[in-house]
Amino acid sequence: MKPITHQWTAVIRRQSPARLLLLSFMAMIATGAFLLMLPVASRKGALSFVDALFTATSAGCVTGLSVLDVAETLTPFGQGVLLTLIQLGGLGIMTLSTLLILGARGRVGFAGNLIIQDSFTHSGKKHPASILRSVIQVTVVIELLGALLLFSRFYPGSPSLGHAAWLSVFHSISAFCNAGFALYPDSLTRFRGDLLVNGTLAFLIITGSLGFLVISELQGKCRPGRWRWERFSLHTRLVVTTSAILLLSGGLLMLLFEWNNTLFGLSLPRKILAAFFQSVTLRTAGFNTLDFGVMANGTLFLSMILMFIGGSPGSCAGGVKTTTAATLFLMGLSRLRGAAHVSVFSRTIPAKSVEKATHLVMMAFVVVICGTLVLLSSEMGELTHSQSRGRFLELLFESVSAFGTVGLSMGVTPTLSTVGRLCITLLMFVGRLGPMVIAVAVSRDIAPRHRWAEEDIMIG
Amino acid sequence: MKPITHQWTAVIRRQSPARLLLLSFMAMIATGAFLLMLPVASRKGALSFVDALFTATSAGCVTGLSVLDVAETLTPFGQGVLLTLIQLGGLGIMTLSTLLILGARGRVGFAGNLIIQDSFTHSGKKHPASILRSVIQVTVVIELLGALLLFSRFYPGSPSLGHAAWLSVFHSISAFCNAGFALYPDSLTRFRGDLLVNGTLAFLIITGSLGFLVISELQGKCRPGRWRWERFSLHTRLVVTTSAILLLSGGLLMLLFEWNNTLFGLSLPRKILAAFFQSVTLRTAGFNTLDFGVMANGTLFLSMILMFIGGSPGSCAGGVKTTTAATLFLMGLSRLRGAAHVSVFSRTIPAKSVEKATHLVMMAFVVVICGTLVLLSSEMGELTHSQSRGRFLELLFESVSAFGTVGLSMGVTPTLSTVGRLCITLLMFVGRLGPMVIAVAVSRDIAPRHRWAEEDIMIG
Ligand SMILES: [K+]
Ligand SMILES: [K+]
Repeated sequence: MKPITHQWTAVIRRQSPARLLLLSFMAMIATGAFLLMLPVASRKGALSFVDALFTATSAGCVTGLSVLDVAETLTPFGQGVLLTLIQLGGLGIMTLSTLLILGARGRVGFAGNLIIQDSFTHSGKKHPASILRSVIQVTVVIELLGALLLFSRFYPGSPSLGHAAWLSVFHSISAFCNAGFALYPDSLTRFRGDLLVNGTLAFLIITGSLGFLVISELQGKCRPGRWRWERFSLHTRLVVTTSAILLLSGGLLMLLFEWNNTLFGLSLPRKILAAFFQSVTLRTAGFNTLDFGVMANGTLFLSMILMFIGGSPGSCAGGVKTTTAATLFLMGLSRLRGAAHVSVFSRTIPAKSVEKATHLVMMAFVVVICGTLVLLSSEMGELTHSQSRGRFLELLFESVSAFGTVGLSMGVTPTLSTVGRLCITLLMFVGRLGPMVIAVAVSRDIAPRHRWAEEDIMIG
Repeated sequence: MKPITHQWTAVIRRQSPARLLLLSFMAMIATGAFLLMLPVASRKGALSFVDALFTATSAGCVTGLSVLDVAETLTPFGQGVLLTLIQLGGLGIMTLSTLLILGARGRVGFAGNLIIQDSFTHSGKKHPASILRSVIQVTVVIELLGALLLFSRFYPGSPSLGHAAWLSVFHSISAFCNAGFALYPDSLTRFRGDLLVNGTLAFLIITGSLGFLVISELQGKCRPGRWRWERFSLHTRLVVTTSAILLLSGGLLMLLFEWNNTLFGLSLPRKILAAFFQSVTLRTAGFNTLDFGVMANGTLFLSMILMFIGGSPGSCAGGVKTTTAATLFLMGLSRLRGAAHVSVFSRTIPAKSVEKATHLVMMAFVVVICGTLVLLSSEMGELTHSQSRGRFLELLFESVSAFGTVGLSMGVTPTLSTVGRLCITLLMFVGRLGPMVIAVAVSRDIAPRHRWAEEDIMIG
């Protein structure tokens, strides 16, 4: 056995981190799709290849978009496969992105050293295996806590203890991994006034979207009496501040736009609860307690912006990430002030990171635009103009949701054509892994090669 | 007189180029709005302040969006004011942006020296006054030629020689300045099969959107027997190549998407003519021979991309400009190839220009997104969801069209509320002057100041 294992290890070691990331996700999704195609996975006859691939990608990339009703169509075996994909995908993304950031494989020339010093050097947790262990520990503890809280709500009135336990575990994992799969046909709309369910899920989603390094730094330094904002790394301060701003402003705007719409008829505390839960889940969990199909256009546009930004790096959340959005915002500010560098909290963000952020957002725009164009040609069918006008918003929303691995939908997912399903599958995959691959690729030190003479052009 | 003139010159000299640009445009638009508010300018009672401001901004920024029917509402005096604003706006933009690029005022540290050497040094045309003179010469010659060609079509069947001459001059100037105002209520839909009108206008629009430096370089080097692609500056080669690619691909896609829609019933040559004319006018003239209100969603999305890119720097065209789009595309390519520099045609584009391009596009996205958000809240009124869904596309289209100073509309302009009108007015102004101001601001050499210690964050 040993020589073969050794051979395999050698093959794996020879791959670049980016390729390894892509290959491992492809293998996981292919296995998942194969298992979901087995007759034992579905109650309504075996799934087609495209649907199985779509569902496996959506689970593995923790997106939550679904062409089928998970609770009704999938058997317990199928649901188990789905949950395994979510958990593996979530753990994989957290661990791999943390490793990529820390440059633990010794190949990535990433300047994450200050973060390493702050969070890891003192405890010696620098080895890949020990990081994976810590990630799993944190995940299991938080998910168990979430499942227990949910169980206390789901058990009374449930047909069996097993069923209540399954519901609790499923939704806890789905929330912490920011996957957004729910075992109810209306997502979580029925719980929109329930403080316990909303609070638990919001806690799971937020901790799941902050990123492992932030969690472990908060955990390590947040002892009573030792709390000092300046002691935290720039990364953690930026992540916490940006997340708080996005959550609060998202909730307030949601409240404002939907007051007389989807929030109509709810009491004031429930209005506030529903609006803030929706703001939490937009980045990028993908549960919904309100119906996105009937929201106001302004809300939907705002939602797309929040979905596009998404969560923080090194977490299960998707999108271009909070730090990217913050960096670009700060870059704009520093330009307006005529400053040469991008700074915040008495620190300068390195030019390399600013460049990485602009690349990432450009790539994201191009991918979403191309995806929308494909959907616009594949999903129009025989509609007349007045019927088809609304489709534009629905399909743009679907593209952004898939790219940000959010999983919210205005309701078009089950109606997609085969081309549309494949397009969304690809968008989810690119949206999940693209940002990480770009972060690695841009930070690679490029060997100086042959270079042409400079000649300027006019811009603007 | 002399001391006062001298005083004023001193005041003007003290302003930064960017502020001078903004102030001169504001003064021109304010004067225009005042003249349009006079009772003598309108056949239907004096225009309101908001409408006069909207119309003056649309003309001065050569946009072409209109809340009123120009031919029916405005008197010959009003139409004259409009045409003067278009001509002054067009000349002003061409001259000022050329001056800014050349750094002729000696303040702008723009690295346009290679372009100067290529196009100007040999003929000594470096002084602002001489550049203005050349710009006016080129403009008058091309517009006269266009007016003569149009006159040969408009005169037969016209009630009077004067009317035909006015129509010819108006549309020739409107086309060369990429303004897109037409004296027909349906823009130019009635001429969609007319080769002479389409050809003349396309020629005027294309020459007007290449930029003065490109025209004068083409004019200077394009002598028979001396033609060699490599002799042209990188800027000119990039502008010509990008424009050709955008025009051709836009025309082909328009043909494909609209074959059975707005092009239905036309003969094949007329289909091709109409599709390519529409592709020309999308960047960013704004005439239309096809009805954008009934186009397919795919066409409209593509149109928005073309409108967003727009024409070339130093011309009357708007948008983020061809060179900006080309630079970002080439940056993406060079990243994929793992190259450290952005190169094309055996030349390297300076990092400063790449940075300028990314800043410009970021700014453009933010402005369009904010504009759309304002319109989404101001223009929804009491519509139900199924009615309002289509408004999203219409308002997004309107925002992009205003920002790119294109002037195409899906038909919502005259229905805009007062807030909506002011929002579009602002978008036109920012879309016209923002890119130039950014190009100047970014190229300013920033004095090194106090700088915080670097600390990296994670991106992606
Ligand atoms: K999700
Ligand atoms: K225009």
